[in-house]
Amino acid sequence: MRALTLRSGLEYSEQHPAPTTANGEAVVRVIQAGICATDLQLMQGYMGFQGVLGHEFVGIVDEAPHRTNLVGKRVVGEINAACRGCPVCQAGRLTHCPRRTTLGIDRRDGAFADFLALPIENLYPLPDEITNDQAVFTEPLAAACQILEQVPVDAMDRVLVIGDGKLGLLCAQVLQRTGCRLTVLGRHQEKLQILTARGIHTSQDPASLSPGLDIVVEATGTAGGFKLAREYVRPRGTIVLKSTYHGQTAVDMTALVIHEITVVGSRCGPFPAAIALLKENAIDVQSLIHKRFPIEQGTDAFEHAATKGMLKVILEMS
Amino acid sequence: MRALTLRSGLEYSEQHPAPTTANGEAVVRVIQAGICATDLQLMQGYMGFQGVLGHEFVGIVDEAPHRTNLVGKRVVGEINAACRGCPVCQAGRLTHCPRRTTLGIDRRDGAFADFLALPIENLYPLPDEITNDQAVFTEPLAAACQILEQVPVDAMDRVLVIGDGKLGLLCAQVLQRTGCRLTVLGRHQEKLQILTARGIHTSQDPASLSPGLDIVVEATGTAGGFKLAREYVRPRGTIVLKSTYHGQTAVDMTALVIHEITVVGSRCGPFPAAIALLKENAIDVQSLIHKRFPIEQGTDAFEHAATKGMLKVILEMS
Repeated sequence: MRALTLRSGLEYSEQHPAPTTANGEAVVRVIQAGICATDLQLMQGYMGFQGVLGHEFVGIVDEAPHRTNLVGKRVVGEINAACRGCPVCQAGRLTHCPRRTTLGIDRRDGAFADFLALPIENLYPLPDEITNDQAVFTEPLAAACQILEQVPVDAMDRVLVIGDGKLGLLCAQVLQRTGCRLTVLGRHQEKLQILTARGIHTSQDPASLSPGLDIVVEATGTAGGFKLAREYVRPRGTIVLKSTYHGQTAVDMTALVIHEITVVGSRCGPFPAAIALLKENAIDVQSLIHKRFPIEQGTDAFEHAATKGMLKVILEMS
Repeated sequence: MRALTLRSGLEYSEQHPAPTTANGEAVVRVIQAGICATDLQLMQGYMGFQGVLGHEFVGIVDEAPHRTNLVGKRVVGEINAACRGCPVCQAGRLTHCPRRTTLGIDRRDGAFADFLALPIENLYPLPDEITNDQAVFTEPLAAACQILEQVPVDAMDRVLVIGDGKLGLLCAQVLQRTGCRLTVLGRHQEKLQILTARGIHTSQDPASLSPGLDIVVEATGTAGGFKLAREYVRPRGTIVLKSTYHGQTAVDMTALVIHEITVVGSRCGPFPAAIALLKENAIDVQSLIHKRFPIEQGTDAFEHAATKGMLKVILEMS
């Protein structure tokens, strides 16, 4: 099959072996998939991953040995394949299973290929209202929804999102729905415009912000972003970390203690919540798609995705 | 009056002017006061404080212009003098008032003197059951109680306290009362013995601990302590920071994100909760007193307090 594989570099092949399935796993024929910032980090050696990249996808179930009624269904998939037997899984924290593999990230071939394999329990059939373009955003939108699973946000809260990348734009739209007093701090007029068009207050100048915010979502993954978050959150406020960071970050821990700040790491989120939002067309994801490539031009697609200011690049398998 | 003042160094004087009071403030004649790790940090330049040191005290109200029934009462005092008018105070977060002064720490002379001044609202009359030695621990015990104000702890939780200093020993005893599955990791057999005598499980060897803990209280204020906390807390678990740190700490933020860990800064706590615990003699503080000095020997007392492994040193004013 066709596949885009990370070895020492990114390689496109048409002779890649089809995925093998373990018991309880389904095979999905991929329709299209999105390139994520994590894919670019994996290219730099993050997680030491080698294999087929890609974890944001929509596809059609091709084989599902124990759930034949799934075959032919259009699906998205939760990327963490948990063992479902260990104490962590039994406690309901499937995305933290210590034995998990992760699609296109950790010991499991990913979605930039004609076919992928995932446990049947990971697959979510899609309502017809959701387009393929929307469906590709289910995984990152679920990650944005995870904020609300971890931190209560209400209409009285003053909330700041730092970062106007893909995840920042999704987090902002999810947070807007709480009715909170929201501002998004970014650097790119054209990206922030996607939010202002939806009535979200944005700024390109930190100096324009008032400190004393209840919740700050850090979606830049930079030391500078965290420092800003610390400066603008109020005493006893909450900083949500939505991005991974390069290496170690120097943190003024004493300031966290003196101001009794809570820092919450936040990663993968609930697919059903994201699917519900997409079904009611509550989130603008279409404006986040900047470019599309057939999988044969996968290396070009990655070059484009790595361009500064680029939002979502889609790889099309069919 | 007699006072122990921090200028370029620590100076003892018998000619220090008595404190002046603002409207709504009382004057307290200090009976005795405890030397805290923060006092030692202030000596190193922390907060840039100059003035009379000391914030853990018990005393007798000497003047209370608007509450004359307080005069003669034995009291302890909340150390943060809030303005009670700003939005932060109105929101009930008095210990975070941006205009606050702090006894012996920030722009307010402290307790290592014959007299100190504090707002009347900051003073808590003591029940007769509480000895003067116990009373000196009200402030740090309140700080330990603050953990339970910020993080729910129940009998099923596996909890680790890292650090067997004064605050670690108080935190451990407060946490024990929740019935949680508690271990304290420390370095000093004789300090841990205070806890084992009360049925608390202790260890001097990190390798003896099982990872996957629900809550870890970091009470060492060291990068090594935080690193251990990170290694032993479970995914979606909570690290409570109870100590201030020297300078910046290098933190693996990506690990916080991937494991969705919550880090909670925790500082001053509720005096009524601490007084209630001392009244029912629920916390062993007596074993934490290592040495006592008259205020005239204050510089010697500080030398002792700075000795490695030393617990509480008390300064006696009368």
